[in-house]
Amino acid sequence: MTNDDSINATGLQAAIDMLAPCGELFVIAPDEPRSGSSHALTINTPVKLTSLRQSEGLSVYMASGTPADCVKLATSCLLPRMPDLLVAGINHGSNSSVSVIYSGTMGAAIEGAMLGVPSIGFSLCSHSRDADFAASIKYGRTIARKIIEQGLPPHIALNVNIPALPESEVKGIRICRQNRGYWNEDFAPQLNPLTGENEYWLTGFYHNEEPGAAGTDETALSEGYISIVPVQFDMTAYEVMNEIQGLVVSD
Amino acid sequence: MTNDDSINATGLQAAIDMLAPCGELFVIAPDEPRSGSSHALTINTPVKLTSLRQSEGLSVYMASGTPADCVKLATSCLLPRMPDLLVAGINHGSNSSVSVIYSGTMGAAIEGAMLGVPSIGFSLCSHSRDADFAASIKYGRTIARKIIEQGLPPHIALNVNIPALPESEVKGIRICRQNRGYWNEDFAPQLNPLTGENEYWLTGFYHNEEPGAAGTDETALSEGYISIVPVQFDMTAYEVMNEIQGLVVSD
Repeated sequence: MTNDDSINATGLQAAIDMLAPCGELFVIAPDEPRSGSSHALTINTPVKLTSLRQSEGLSVYMASGTPADCVKLATSCLLPRMPDLLVAGINHGSNSSVSVIYSGTMGAAIEGAMLGVPSIGFSLCSHSRDADFAASIKYGRTIARKIIEQGLPPHIALNVNIPALPESEVKGIRICRQNRGYWNEDFAPQLNPLTGENEYWLTGFYHNEEPGAAGTDETALSEGYISIVPVQFDMTAYEVMNEIQGLVVSD
Repeated sequence: MTNDDSINATGLQAAIDMLAPCGELFVIAPDEPRSGSSHALTINTPVKLTSLRQSEGLSVYMASGTPADCVKLATSCLLPRMPDLLVAGINHGSNSSVSVIYSGTMGAAIEGAMLGVPSIGFSLCSHSRDADFAASIKYGRTIARKIIEQGLPPHIALNVNIPALPESEVKGIRICRQNRGYWNEDFAPQLNPLTGENEYWLTGFYHNEEPGAAGTDETALSEGYISIVPVQFDMTAYEVMNEIQGLVVSD
């Protein structure tokens, strides 16, 4: 298990509660928040590792790296064998639509899939510190158990987003495709009172390019369903290869 | 233009030389190396911006952020309009196969594609400081000119890798798919002589899952060709959606 909100996140404890009945847990999470770290790796500095807890059924480590670092570190140096399941999360905030690209949670899950481990990223669509993880825990445990039993197709991770609703109001689960959209107007200058110079803070809003479209994760979430997008990491745009051939290679 | 090897990289200067005859250049690059930063964004701290040069046809900024930050910062705060072309690179080292996922160069190019800008990441398959960028400049300029003239299909970036060969030995250009493979055994412990504690450095080797396969970027490069993979950012694994439906949702 790992996450991108750091070892201290409420969502990590919720994930531990979710998976505790499912088997032995091995947790390795970043020492500080790494939201938006995507699939980044730590290359120019070493990663420090701290053992926080070694008890029956639960090992916990903290690492000075990214979520993807945590997965590589665990599988290459710490675990005696590949795990039966990798869970990243439960993230504080949605990772639906194109946020899958920016998400450190999904970076970790995709790294797991690259290494051949059945991998799931869980995200609750709420940034509140007091967010209600009850529905995430209930449905997440069911999903995790099925994947532990049956595995996943090779090179596939699941991007699971849970609407910010009380457990009783969640309508069920839908398998979805990634909604088309983008984040817009992303940096805002602010005067640093100490230096008198402008600094730029990431802001912005999500622009949905197909609101209400059938079959997308955004639509499922807006209708009260948990969305599951199966995610792969072959980025090739097969359908435009001929067009690019004509555009670039031919004269 | 941006890159992930920092404002001081030889490859950035090579990209400037490549594009200088093509139009006005606007450069914004990270203040330090950001290799392996993928599509990471800077969320918890502000990004600082320094103007290094403002002359006719060439503006240069340095930013304390990631390559994807640079793209967002330029398009949201600095450029008077969207550019005709975004170029990331020329990267020192290959970004073929699954390296596209880890690459800060390709993170920037994909961010450009998300914003609707025709975007190309260029990578030379050599980490040498004295690498020969002649073939990159020659072929890259031709590719860039065609894209400036004709654009790219929506939501597509190009991942261009150039073999480390003298210009005269490059055989041509091939449009390719992403080779299947993964990076293995990634972290190695080393004793820090100061603290007496282990630290973990990213190492590892690339494992090619389909050596010599027809149509892949790895094969094209190994045969002396420049590889171009058209890259998209819909991560949905459409072909397994039914399987996941049966696996997770049905009882």
